[in-house]
Amino acid sequence: MEKIKYITLLTDFGNKDPYVAEIKGILFSSLSNINIVDLSHEISPQNIIEGALFLEQIWDYWQIPSVHIAVIDPGVGTERRIIIIHENQKFLICPDNGLATFILRTKHAEVRHVKYFNTLTQYISNTFHGRDIMAPIAIQLVKGGNWEDFGPSVDDWQVLNIPEAYKKDNNIYGEVIHIDRFGNAITNIRKEQIQDNLPIYAKIKNSFQKIPFSLSYGKVSVGQSVCLFGSGNRLEIAVNCSSAEKQLKIKIGTEVRLVLNKD
Amino acid sequence: MEKIKYITLLTDFGNKDPYVAEIKGILFSSLSNINIVDLSHEISPQNIIEGALFLEQIWDYWQIPSVHIAVIDPGVGTERRIIIIHENQKFLICPDNGLATFILRTKHAEVRHVKYFNTLTQYISNTFHGRDIMAPIAIQLVKGGNWEDFGPSVDDWQVLNIPEAYKKDNNIYGEVIHIDRFGNAITNIRKEQIQDNLPIYAKIKNSFQKIPFSLSYGKVSVGQSVCLFGSGNRLEIAVNCSSAEKQLKIKIGTEVRLVLNKD
Amino acid sequence: MEKIKYITLLTDFGNKDPYVAEIKGILFSSLSNINIVDLSHEISPQNIIEGALFLEQIWDYWQIPSVHIAVIDPGVGTERRIIIIHENQKFLICPDNGLATFILRTKHAEVRHVKYFNTLTQYISNTFHGRDIMAPIAIQLVKGGNWEDFGPSVDDWQVLNIPEAYKKDNNIYGEVIHIDRFGNAITNIRKEQIQDNLPIYAKIKNSFQKIPFSLSYGKVSVGQSVCLFGSGNRLEIAVNCSSAEKQLKIKIGTEVRLVLNKD
Repeated sequence: MEKIKYITLLTDFGNKDPYVAEIKGILFSSLSNINIVDLSHEISPQNIIEGALFLEQIWDYWQIPSVHIAVIDPGVGTERRIIIIHENQKFLICPDNGLATFILRTKHAEVRHVKYFNTLTQYISNTFHGRDIMAPIAIQLVKGGNWEDFGPSVDDWQVLNIPEAYKKDNNIYGEVIHIDRFGNAITNIRKEQIQDNLPIYAKIKNSFQKIPFSLSYGKVSVGQSVCLFGSGNRLEIAVNCSSAEKQLKIKIGTEVRLVLNKD
Repeated sequence: MEKIKYITLLTDFGNKDPYVAEIKGILFSSLSNINIVDLSHEISPQNIIEGALFLEQIWDYWQIPSVHIAVIDPGVGTERRIIIIHENQKFLICPDNGLATFILRTKHAEVRHVKYFNTLTQYISNTFHGRDIMAPIAIQLVKGGNWEDFGPSVDDWQVLNIPEAYKKDNNIYGEVIHIDRFGNAITNIRKEQIQDNLPIYAKIKNSFQKIPFSLSYGKVSVGQSVCLFGSGNRLEIAVNCSSAEKQLKIKIGTEVRLVLNKD
Repeated sequence: MEKIKYITLLTDFGNKDPYVAEIKGILFSSLSNINIVDLSHEISPQNIIEGALFLEQIWDYWQIPSVHIAVIDPGVGTERRIIIIHENQKFLICPDNGLATFILRTKHAEVRHVKYFNTLTQYISNTFHGRDIMAPIAIQLVKGGNWEDFGPSVDDWQVLNIPEAYKKDNNIYGEVIHIDRFGNAITNIRKEQIQDNLPIYAKIKNSFQKIPFSLSYGKVSVGQSVCLFGSGNRLEIAVNCSSAEKQLKIKIGTEVRLVLNKD
């Protein structure tokens, strides 16, 4: 395999505490000519689902030899395992808590349970395995370490129990699974679930309002609601130049029905 | 021209969603030895004025061959154009919605309407042109693509309608156009507008308080208000070690009068 | 000394204003092949203690030739000095306001008062020395400038007056000095202060609750409080999968007593 020149970081550490800067110090101090790329440190604290959706969405845009460290890790210091996932030219190092759910659902990836790695320090904390275990694993991989040496292949990884949208007659029933910075409500209804019948409008549970289906936010007037397939190919409900979350009082879990054209 | 080694990103995407990480994946996967620099992703959602002021302020500090992508793009998916601005060794790729207002006001820059570019994927979304159009344009430029091939030269770009401060007798009348993280209120009164007469104090509309002019925040006591020309050469109203926004109840649009010494 | 390839930035500038992007422009425009690493820009405005604790925590993880610029600088434009600290292969450039308190308490470092440096521009603002003075100093250092040329050695630097935890009988008395993104309350009680007697529980002043000592967050049930030595070897009070700050109503300054096992 080509030499790995990129390590990315995805965490729930935020940007005001020193945790990310400690990891960067360790990585830069051990590896020359490495690019460390912040994916996000603003995943909500301990929110594994948010992290898993983030990883799903970005995964295919990284088409280079790279190591991805994902630390949303409420179980740090307990018996939860640390795993490495190897897919194509990429490695993902993360706790075995469901973070890799969506990647492992769709990719032919191999997974190993990390049992052996070269520590950098004598002492490993019980509260910060991103720094004390996952960063050293990344360093070992970038230095050319054989990934089979980290531990046995496993197939019993943790999976998040995320509801799937389903089709019945000319409706698709789903729910909101993420709300982005713009207040766009992103659902579990995927573009592939639409086949011959075109979407007409969506309805939010307990609301009479028909939210028209369109191709872009700006196709309705400012302040009007609209639904469309967003950049991740999921149905999202938006308000042009405003927040659907606030204006339509949508939350994660809000049920959504997408009405399709009849035959 | 020297080889371009820097791409910067300025967006209103925030840091919790995967949008920026998708763009970074595409850029790193297509270009080796590129530096991707986050300028900010915290521009308020859809706030074109904030983005335009940001670009004005940073533009002259980048004196190297570089491509700058600015995505504050409420009109994505509508008929609004995408433009490239070429000034000195720099390119700015952005929607034609006023983001480049201040750069184009003061620089001898050439502007092209992007009609042709090498797509990276078969499908271009209607909601994320930063990823599907602007990133590919940047890649084409960095790979040495001729910038004249992107489309025709234009001179009818969109301009924001920002009020200008004006002088009358020994006063300069302006207003607050930005409030920074410290609560400093930055106005449209520029240092060049002062000539022979030195500033003495500022007044906020509907307030009797005289805010003394000084050279630095710390020249007044902690908790005292002060006005001065900030690092971008605009008059700003500040409170030493506190927030002028909160303490003086200033908002964007608050009218400010700067009183100059009489002859 | 080996060539310096890293400059890090620690500021209270936030990520929405153009200040950091101006500094990056200057650094990249003057230095080729430099890595600029964001440590944090989310230090609370003017909060020198927060910045000093951040620097303490990350310092030892950076074991490479590097220049660190720290700009939490409420006294900018007054008579406060700018200093350079040289420890091992690292330089820290910062205002002399206590930011380096913890580094200088434990390291054999040399400190110089900056009196001479190569300016990049004719004009130096009174409000942004990070850009107009500290960035040029960093450039001069990276270009191989002799650090003794910046000014005289000093030993009267400013020190923050931070309370120390103390031991009495089988108790250690301390207080909360930082609250992190997770709501973990980090105290001034350090692991080295425990010797033979193991910690049993902690108490917060004016509360009867005994917070059990453990080795990791996940060793208690979700929603239960716990105290432990965190990744920086300080006692912290946490709630598993929740916020100790909110649940236990802890603030910076809250007094904490750690009860040790009797002989």
